[in-house]
Amino acid sequence: MRIPKLYVEGEEGEEKVVIEKDGKIIRFLDKGESYEGEGKVLGKVIYDDFPNYILMGEATRDMLIVYEVGGLKKIMYLKKGTKLLEVPAEGYKVYPIVDHGCRILEGHRLAALQSRKGDIRFVNTPVNGIVVFLREVPCKRENYVFYILPDEEIKFE
Amino acid sequence: MRIPKLYVEGEEGEEKVVIEKDGKIIRFLDKGESYEGEGKVLGKVIYDDFPNYILMGEATRDMLIVYEVGGLKKIMYLKKGTKLLEVPAEGYKVYPIVDHGCRILEGHRLAALQSRKGDIRFVNTPVNGIVVFLREVPCKRENYVFYILPDEEIKFE
Repeated sequence: MRIPKLYVEGEEGEEKVVIEKDGKIIRFLDKGESYEGEGKVLGKVIYDDFPNYILMGEATRDMLIVYEVGGLKKIMYLKKGTKLLEVPAEGYKVYPIVDHGCRILEGHRLAALQSRKGDIRFVNTPVNGIVVFLREVPCKRENYVFYILPDEEIKFE
Repeated sequence: MRIPKLYVEGEEGEEKVVIEKDGKIIRFLDKGESYEGEGKVLGKVIYDDFPNYILMGEATRDMLIVYEVGGLKKIMYLKKGTKLLEVPAEGYKVYPIVDHGCRILEGHRLAALQSRKGDIRFVNTPVNGIVVFLREVPCKRENYVFYILPDEEIKFE
């Protein structure tokens, strides 16, 4: 699988994107191109750094995730302050079923978990939403965390 | 589920998007805003009209699919000439599992089919790719067609 590109507000990076008018204009700058306007400038960072910009389930910066393949360019613009739901998937073996950009409906399977004995269980999503990012947590047991944007904002009481 | 917006090159529509520099700049015009530049102008059409712009599995126009929810804006820019794979799912009852924007890996389940007797079978994807559009074909038996952009271009011999 190709790895998407992640651009983050306020970060420096060889590649930059400018967001103008609250996302109405998305402008990918050429390498070395300078920008003088009023828009937000997002710099390219390592894709796996995404979780660094999520604090208490909330995006701390504007972010843009870009995935290009063939004649398709997929862009996800995530605004600062957006609340995400983090769903962990942990097991002896973990097989993710959905990936970034995927719309999911409540009860859909996110990942299959295999126990050491070989039993299979599934991790389902508790909400309707979109998978924004799939984090692989390196450790002895394979771990993943699904970052999901729910269709309806989460309310913590 | 909210319905995405579909913009198509050369179509008129109250809402318009401009694509400049081969997709490096995506500019959503305000209602009534005029545009004089060199970019391609895409007009908003009915989302379900997507298949009208696919001929022999090939996109006949530049298209932009926009899905907005909460603080997320998801954009898929499909270039004219891009080849898509159409995978039908037909049965007494059909339950789609994946939706637009979803990355899928070879063998992944696209939909569950239920026979009149209640037997369940699955439709899997033959390729790695992205689900660009999910078409619902209205008829006595529920039918769906998955439009998939394969990671590797399809070659017909």
